[in-house]
Amino acid sequence: MGLLRSYILSTLITVVLCQKIMSVPSSKKYEPTWDSLDTRPMPVWYDDAKIGIFVHWGVFSVPSFGSEWFWHSWKVRNMTEYTQFMERYRATSSYQEFAGDFSAEFFDPKSWAELFKSAGAQYVILTSKHHDGYTLWPSKYSYSWNSVDVGPHRDIVGELSAAVKAENITFGLYHSLYEWFNPMYLDDKASKFAKDNYVVRKVLPELTELVETYQPYILWSDGDWEASEDYWESRKFLAWLYNDSPVKDKVVVNDRWGINITCQHGDFFTCQDRFNPGVLQRHKWENAMTIDRKSFGYRRNAKLEDYLTTHELISTMVETVSCGGNILINIGPSKDGTINHIYQERLFDLGKWLSVNGEAIYGTRPWAHQNDTASNTWYTTRANVIYALTLKWPTNNHLRIAAPVSIFESISTIQLLGQKQKLNVKLEWTSDEKVLVVEFPNKAVVATDWVYVIKIVT
Amino acid sequence: MGLLRSYILSTLITVVLCQKIMSVPSSKKYEPTWDSLDTRPMPVWYDDAKIGIFVHWGVFSVPSFGSEWFWHSWKVRNMTEYTQFMERYRATSSYQEFAGDFSAEFFDPKSWAELFKSAGAQYVILTSKHHDGYTLWPSKYSYSWNSVDVGPHRDIVGELSAAVKAENITFGLYHSLYEWFNPMYLDDKASKFAKDNYVVRKVLPELTELVETYQPYILWSDGDWEASEDYWESRKFLAWLYNDSPVKDKVVVNDRWGINITCQHGDFFTCQDRFNPGVLQRHKWENAMTIDRKSFGYRRNAKLEDYLTTHELISTMVETVSCGGNILINIGPSKDGTINHIYQERLFDLGKWLSVNGEAIYGTRPWAHQNDTASNTWYTTRANVIYALTLKWPTNNHLRIAAPVSIFESISTIQLLGQKQKLNVKLEWTSDEKVLVVEFPNKAVVATDWVYVIKIVT
Amino acid sequence: MGLLRSYILSTLITVVLCQKIMSVPSSKKYEPTWDSLDTRPMPVWYDDAKIGIFVHWGVFSVPSFGSEWFWHSWKVRNMTEYTQFMERYRATSSYQEFAGDFSAEFFDPKSWAELFKSAGAQYVILTSKHHDGYTLWPSKYSYSWNSVDVGPHRDIVGELSAAVKAENITFGLYHSLYEWFNPMYLDDKASKFAKDNYVVRKVLPELTELVETYQPYILWSDGDWEASEDYWESRKFLAWLYNDSPVKDKVVVNDRWGINITCQHGDFFTCQDRFNPGVLQRHKWENAMTIDRKSFGYRRNAKLEDYLTTHELISTMVETVSCGGNILINIGPSKDGTINHIYQERLFDLGKWLSVNGEAIYGTRPWAHQNDTASNTWYTTRANVIYALTLKWPTNNHLRIAAPVSIFESISTIQLLGQKQKLNVKLEWTSDEKVLVVEFPNKAVVATDWVYVIKIVT
Amino acid sequence: MGLLRSYILSTLITVVLCQKIMSVPSSKKYEPTWDSLDTRPMPVWYDDAKIGIFVHWGVFSVPSFGSEWFWHSWKVRNMTEYTQFMERYRATSSYQEFAGDFSAEFFDPKSWAELFKSAGAQYVILTSKHHDGYTLWPSKYSYSWNSVDVGPHRDIVGELSAAVKAENITFGLYHSLYEWFNPMYLDDKASKFAKDNYVVRKVLPELTELVETYQPYILWSDGDWEASEDYWESRKFLAWLYNDSPVKDKVVVNDRWGINITCQHGDFFTCQDRFNPGVLQRHKWENAMTIDRKSFGYRRNAKLEDYLTTHELISTMVETVSCGGNILINIGPSKDGTINHIYQERLFDLGKWLSVNGEAIYGTRPWAHQNDTASNTWYTTRANVIYALTLKWPTNNHLRIAAPVSIFESISTIQLLGQKQKLNVKLEWTSDEKVLVVEFPNKAVVATDWVYVIKIVT
Repeated sequence: MGLLRSYILSTLITVVLCQKIMSVPSSKKYEPTWDSLDTRPMPVWYDDAKIGIFVHWGVFSVPSFGSEWFWHSWKVRNMTEYTQFMERYRATSSYQEFAGDFSAEFFDPKSWAELFKSAGAQYVILTSKHHDGYTLWPSKYSYSWNSVDVGPHRDIVGELSAAVKAENITFGLYHSLYEWFNPMYLDDKASKFAKDNYVVRKVLPELTELVETYQPYILWSDGDWEASEDYWESRKFLAWLYNDSPVKDKVVVNDRWGINITCQHGDFFTCQDRFNPGVLQRHKWENAMTIDRKSFGYRRNAKLEDYLTTHELISTMVETVSCGGNILINIGPSKDGTINHIYQERLFDLGKWLSVNGEAIYGTRPWAHQNDTASNTWYTTRANVIYALTLKWPTNNHLRIAAPVSIFESISTIQLLGQKQKLNVKLEWTSDEKVLVVEFPNKAVVATDWVYVIKIVT
Repeated sequence: MGLLRSYILSTLITVVLCQKIMSVPSSKKYEPTWDSLDTRPMPVWYDDAKIGIFVHWGVFSVPSFGSEWFWHSWKVRNMTEYTQFMERYRATSSYQEFAGDFSAEFFDPKSWAELFKSAGAQYVILTSKHHDGYTLWPSKYSYSWNSVDVGPHRDIVGELSAAVKAENITFGLYHSLYEWFNPMYLDDKASKFAKDNYVVRKVLPELTELVETYQPYILWSDGDWEASEDYWESRKFLAWLYNDSPVKDKVVVNDRWGINITCQHGDFFTCQDRFNPGVLQRHKWENAMTIDRKSFGYRRNAKLEDYLTTHELISTMVETVSCGGNILINIGPSKDGTINHIYQERLFDLGKWLSVNGEAIYGTRPWAHQNDTASNTWYTTRANVIYALTLKWPTNNHLRIAAPVSIFESISTIQLLGQKQKLNVKLEWTSDEKVLVVEFPNKAVVATDWVYVIKIVT
Repeated sequence: MGLLRSYILSTLITVVLCQKIMSVPSSKKYEPTWDSLDTRPMPVWYDDAKIGIFVHWGVFSVPSFGSEWFWHSWKVRNMTEYTQFMERYRATSSYQEFAGDFSAEFFDPKSWAELFKSAGAQYVILTSKHHDGYTLWPSKYSYSWNSVDVGPHRDIVGELSAAVKAENITFGLYHSLYEWFNPMYLDDKASKFAKDNYVVRKVLPELTELVETYQPYILWSDGDWEASEDYWESRKFLAWLYNDSPVKDKVVVNDRWGINITCQHGDFFTCQDRFNPGVLQRHKWENAMTIDRKSFGYRRNAKLEDYLTTHELISTMVETVSCGGNILINIGPSKDGTINHIYQERLFDLGKWLSVNGEAIYGTRPWAHQNDTASNTWYTTRANVIYALTLKWPTNNHLRIAAPVSIFESISTIQLLGQKQKLNVKLEWTSDEKVLVVEFPNKAVVATDWVYVIKIVT
Repeated sequence: MGLLRSYILSTLITVVLCQKIMSVPSSKKYEPTWDSLDTRPMPVWYDDAKIGIFVHWGVFSVPSFGSEWFWHSWKVRNMTEYTQFMERYRATSSYQEFAGDFSAEFFDPKSWAELFKSAGAQYVILTSKHHDGYTLWPSKYSYSWNSVDVGPHRDIVGELSAAVKAENITFGLYHSLYEWFNPMYLDDKASKFAKDNYVVRKVLPELTELVETYQPYILWSDGDWEASEDYWESRKFLAWLYNDSPVKDKVVVNDRWGINITCQHGDFFTCQDRFNPGVLQRHKWENAMTIDRKSFGYRRNAKLEDYLTTHELISTMVETVSCGGNILINIGPSKDGTINHIYQERLFDLGKWLSVNGEAIYGTRPWAHQNDTASNTWYTTRANVIYALTLKWPTNNHLRIAAPVSIFESISTIQLLGQKQKLNVKLEWTSDEKVLVVEFPNKAVVATDWVYVIKIVT
């Protein structure tokens, strides 16, 4: 295909992006190289926020069976249970025709935002486009395959963005680079990515449209793994995003931008779904996990035990934050716009816990030690305070902490967060060479359950 | 209309019923009068069972909006929110056409029965036919308006009956006498019930078919309130049920058999929905209540706070049983045959509580006192044991019981059910003229939450 | 089951019918015996009318595949092509659920009546209930399985009746006694018709309702063939119809009232579908035929050659009327209420022909001879006029009629109906012992095509 | 936006097209100018063919109401009858959702092709994409908005192309340049066509894909009228089509390529829908007309009188061919893949007429005179034969032709095509200064009706 073509196409991209570049004077410009891009300081708001809500919603919420990978499981993997499901299902014979039944009649973005607020979430990330290619906004580049043309007949991205911002929650967008069945993509792929029609005609225009229209502060990229960052034009796009986009000062992005990029580059690393390493990481990271253990998209026939208990959810959050991560808690709304009550209850429980113990989470940083295995206790810190978060009520009401005893020598007070008695109660303790023992009160006085937080002031 | 006709029609009924009567020789026969029917001893299994599950499922589960009275609210009361809902709803323009979307693709009667078992339920009652007239079994008298002809294409009553019995749970059936829109009924009603085509051609044949086919041990009648027991032929039907039906030895019925009958006659009284008098009743009764405070049928857009908390559910059960009632806990499955996870969680919590504290409920009888208001404590008894169930953890860990002190004089042991320590712990107490004080342990040792049971052996 | 029961049930029927009997004083009463019923003179309007339109419309018009026996072919005969059709069909999995798609959005009874008027029809017969049991009126005895409850949400019988009468066309109703899948019927049948719940509770009430509400002048019974007239209570019903119904003076009925009754009793005989004996009959009869050779109900995928040509239609009508029959021409509207344009064109052509040649059809009687085979000519007569209707233009423009020459000796004039020249043209002829020869004009002057009518005045 | 951008974009187009150009060596190349393009000789097959069938099928066939402009009438013009229709229509609330109901279950391309063959058609043109943008083939550039992804799940273009070619009929494709609601188009339009994303990213790729995949011999462009040929890149595209496409030797195109191009450039002119000038044209043209006078797409509720009679259809064809045009006869299949029987009957009648009289149509050329108004006669010619086609049977059986008498002086024989007698009958005539009189036979001997053809051999 030769030099001429790639020159022209790259020029085309340049033109699209340059219009922005030229229009925004700036002192410092990032180059489209990782050496340059990696020098950008991550906006601090993200590290302080700790807790986000991930929302997987789309046409896959109509069959609401298996997972949000329904189409792929059915048509690429030809899994028997999916074929059988479709034989029983009456209304359609192709995935795309599910879209007409994506009714969203109860979708009330304000009540969603209030729910997320009550859960203590600091940011919300919506699947603007998943691997099926259906866009939750009226994209110029996805005519007749978006939420205004078929299904809800509403701009889901726009409506949720406004509602979330009205609750003073930061709004971000998930976006899948690849689309399983987009024929332009498949054609590029068949050429071993020598062609790039799909990126030039679809991905870059729609990403630009998305960022300019909705101005998300998080861009959560996905679906990158079949092709290189060169194919996706990732560095050029990020240079534009950091230099010239309307969100250049606030935006953070994750690390899914091409083969071998994940866990290597990006404002924060996600590495893999439900990444929860249990040890301190050198780079800011995020644990994108799900309340339904088995699926991001809503599954109507999930079992109750498939959902994390409140204790599991809060424990996972504590472990994540102790090791320097943010937690991105996924829920899957139903096709009608309701959010399953079990999701709601988990989020309300989380919010209730945070209303008492939030100071041990928000704005904290990892401490010198991450955890004490024997007592199942994790740490965070801020200024002269250390928080010890124990995942279970201590046996015989005595919490025994072994590891960081030397550091505790200068303790001035110890307090259990959320005791019903309004007074700050100083706890008694005894210390030998190895163990700090904290005596707990009658559990009946503790305001919240699940995880108990000792606030240690030094 | 004259003597001849009513003679003939009553004879017709007699014939239908007499076929049974004649085929079953019996020593004692009940007459179709309340004087006679009321002499029947209630089968004891029912009083021992205490806890049943009520299942409201049907075509109303398709709109799943407002309540199971959807059709009535829309078409009789013309309520605005229903009209607006139907304007948004895309698939149909009449209530009956919802039936085609009653898909039940995930209906698994075995998993339902296991759920009810795990909740500790002793019996299950299904809406075989609600006021819309749609039957969940293939009734000969409801051609094309039943669950085999349109919708699930399954015999819901038959399948659930078999699955419930396989779990050793008693099976019962709800049945509505009237049907809002059945033209035969409306014609009878227009005649001020001088006509009785609807009873002769529809109600009695279908009740007989239902009892003979599925042999329910509970027949939970409803929809009686617009007409007299004479119109409904209630006493004749009950005489047949008690004398000659295949369930004559086991069956219990409620009290909704015509104007002025409710709360007066029947094996147990329901009086009104969610009946919970708070004082001892002279006749066996049942509290038919709902986990969703506002609806028996599933409402997709219910708010989380519309569901009873586990504490509220268990508290209501305790109050009910203390006053001599059974509790019939209602859930509303979804149109696809799933049961909302919040219902599942409430039922699992209940079952967890009962696995520890069930001896204070099952097979008990009301005690001399029902409750102690100050301490929010309720009583049950069996043989030489009195159970005191307190609805909240006592302040300062001391439960103070005022009322029945004199009776407690002969206490031999007091124990808190479900303490994690395996030993039976005798609790300390002090008694003056007025108050028995029981000292509670650290709450951390209690196996279950919500309601705490003191077992007093005398 | 014994005497008592059958006494009571027959009394029940008597009561229902007697209420009518007693309310209408009458000089002569027909007994419920054929000896008596057969003495009733047929109302003369029917013999004069000659041409009716048969309308097969119902839920079978939704699949519109195979024939109006769709359900039976699919579920009783298990025919492969039906099974395959249902696998392809997306919206439903049971016949009854087709009803929701019986949309009738273009049903305009006035335009239907105008079409029938323009075709020259004197009466119209609609399938009020076919073998599927779905009623096109809101029957009290077919709750939720009728055209007001599901599908059109309109009283099809009532609307069409009013529109047809407004065009001065007589209105009649087809009614099927049996219903393939009605469980009450199947139960009676399983008892070898010892039981009669279906007749007592369904057929007789609905027939009475139908006659009293819509007052049809023709009652076209069908679906009788599996049971005896005793089971159907046919004679009792007819005695009521002739003695006491609101249409007693005008109504005519056909002959399908039980095994061995067809072609033996009734105001007119239909014997079998598309009955066209080709010879004079001793009793008034009707040829119930179809424009689509293969189906009464509309078939979307019929081939053009499946439709009778206009020539075939008019020829069949001529043969029928010549032999003393009426013709009942069937059309099948589409589910949306439109009538396929090919039906419309056939009916318009028929009407165009009748506007020129109708005097040879309406009000005529069979002649001494019915037809002349060699020349393909058929006869009708009225007073001193004989009509010879030749089904093809004669070879060499000379019509040669052999048979009835002697009768023609007193001819005063011969005329070709519909010549464009307004004058009555006497035709030349020559006669030898055997043949009358009529010389035809240039065909260009004939007003209508298809069948040519010679009017012979004696 | 400047020079750079338009240079790059035009280069991009060049690249796409040049790949073809370079791969096909050729002696003569057309330039992308009308001066050059207009020099191309039209392939002669098209002028000889005379009769084509136009097929309008697509998502508009689902509402099948109003016309194929349904969406535009509803949403752009906001016409009341469309709004009301949608309120009644139950299944959807957006045009795009109609696509799921485009079922095509009876679509049998072989039977379509046989129908077109029997009609005497020489070519068939299918709407590959109408103004709604829905493609009847699986275009890479119309993901999820094409007949494989939603609706039929079949490649309609591919299947019909194969079937038509198997009947030795030439296959062509209609293609709409603009799309009413494509947001890329609307964006270009809002820029007053300064932008051209829609052409570069959608139109040109899809046109190239269409031509290369299906190799149509006719490309029937439409939807050009809002923008200039510069915007559409029409001349460049045509230069590629004529020079380098796989159909370069056979293809013909019409004239709808931009503002002011229609009726000025192109292989044949269509000028406007149903163009039928009645006088000889200097450039090859085509009369794209409809059997349904009011719509190209099928309308379920069309009236019978909205369809051309067979006489009107043949008359229009005769007038068209006499004046040098081809006739493109439009039919609109139903959403289920059937073709309304009235269309079938018109086409069969046409085919029957052509089987007798086709020599006066196929391969003919206009004669010196086009018509004789008084006798309603039109002419065609070939070699030494003149055909006079009279649209009605002459009064008194004498056809009187005034105009071209002098030319007739050398007549050797005159014959009526299709007389049943096998012999060639010479007709008598007399000639004065003005009128040629031809005596017609008894109409009964003429093989076909509607239009009568005199074959004059000189």
